[in-house]
Amino acid sequence: MTEKKSTTIILFSGDYDKAMAAYIIANGAAAYDHEVTIFHTFWGLNALRKDEAISIKKGFMENMFAKMMPRGADKMGLSNMNFAGMGPKMIKNVIKKHNAVPLPQLIEMAQEQDVKLVACTMTMDLLGLQKEELLDQIEYAGVAAYLADAQEGNVNLFI
Amino acid sequence: MTEKKSTTIILFSGDYDKAMAAYIIANGAAAYDHEVTIFHTFWGLNALRKDEAISIKKGFMENMFAKMMPRGADKMGLSNMNFAGMGPKMIKNVIKKHNAVPLPQLIEMAQEQDVKLVACTMTMDLLGLQKEELLDQIEYAGVAAYLADAQEGNVNLFI
Amino acid sequence: MTEKKSTTIILFSGDYDKAMAAYIIANGAAAYDHEVTIFHTFWGLNALRKDEAISIKKGFMENMFAKMMPRGADKMGLSNMNFAGMGPKMIKNVIKKHNAVPLPQLIEMAQEQDVKLVACTMTMDLLGLQKEELLDQIEYAGVAAYLADAQEGNVNLFI
Repeated sequence: MTEKKSTTIILFSGDYDKAMAAYIIANGAAAYDHEVTIFHTFWGLNALRKDEAISIKKGFMENMFAKMMPRGADKMGLSNMNFAGMGPKMIKNVIKKHNAVPLPQLIEMAQEQDVKLVACTMTMDLLGLQKEELLDQIEYAGVAAYLADAQEGNVNLFI
Repeated sequence: MTEKKSTTIILFSGDYDKAMAAYIIANGAAAYDHEVTIFHTFWGLNALRKDEAISIKKGFMENMFAKMMPRGADKMGLSNMNFAGMGPKMIKNVIKKHNAVPLPQLIEMAQEQDVKLVACTMTMDLLGLQKEELLDQIEYAGVAAYLADAQEGNVNLFI
Repeated sequence: MTEKKSTTIILFSGDYDKAMAAYIIANGAAAYDHEVTIFHTFWGLNALRKDEAISIKKGFMENMFAKMMPRGADKMGLSNMNFAGMGPKMIKNVIKKHNAVPLPQLIEMAQEQDVKLVACTMTMDLLGLQKEELLDQIEYAGVAAYLADAQEGNVNLFI
């Protein structure tokens, strides 16, 4: 019996391009028959936000974070050449032109391929994000669960 | 006999939030009974700086770096939403509010749990940092020592 | 028979300092007798650009990217303290002063040590980069080839 290989990615970054890289690797690894987990922490949680406004009572700080952070994958900025938001439009244009897959569809593909999408509960708490604001069918866990996956893994990345 | 698992993290970033992530993973892995090493290089060395001013004769360039770089973990900025220093205050506020652990205490916890904290001697030299300016009880090494640890490791991350 | 260890690095970043870290680790690992691959994707592709202007017919977007992105390793900015381009000069000065190796020479060393330098074809396409613009003697591949290397690897990093 050969054991299944696994890929475990921490997505810390809230940048559109870095999240794209994470999801491209994850989808590739799933196609390669790896068990794949993306553990979203800090700004990476924004990739899992629903794009509609969810009305939830929050403290002042939590409200400020919620307003300042991008609501969902499609609204994230670039790590480089963001140019006050022009960069993401350029990237989305070239993605369309070259028939590549934009981030929201990469996330859907990952869910269809059973990539385990995990939201880090500790940083959700810090940033004041609640389950109602995040995509359905994701899991919630902390650093212990991450380590349990990662220590048996073949490809471990922090993005 | 089962061999001990290990986690080896390169902390390259000088951002408060990324250093928090590194130390949370390191402390988690130590609690999980891993052998844990954090190898601090480039801007990540700032997490190891003492917060008092140390008077050392330095060249012009080295002095400029020393003045411009944050002196210790508590003074580091955020990778995202730094807002000219307002971001770190917000994060520290929510950390306090949610009873989470701020970075300087995460570093102390790591030292108590015998996480090996290493300063990269090559980049210390480049940035003009000297041993007197860094925390006590840390180790000094180069890329060969990092590779010796990492190549036997289970969880290898670059943060 | 002992199997050869391997190190596989994804270089996503287009920052001079992060690329330096990637190439220092890669050269160290090659000296340590690892099989080493650096897989250049997104902004990391800029490290592989030739420094002369190559005249190629491109679309409008591709031309804009080509003009805005740094042409080769020597022209890349810093991830931190870039100060509108003053930071890289400072770093290059201290590199010279301390007899450290600047990035273009680190890349040459890597090629001499048979580090496999790979350009990600999917992101080349997105950013409109063509083979004529990149260094000679590099390889071209996609995420599947990366995973084939990385899943057997000892040290996997995303930089």
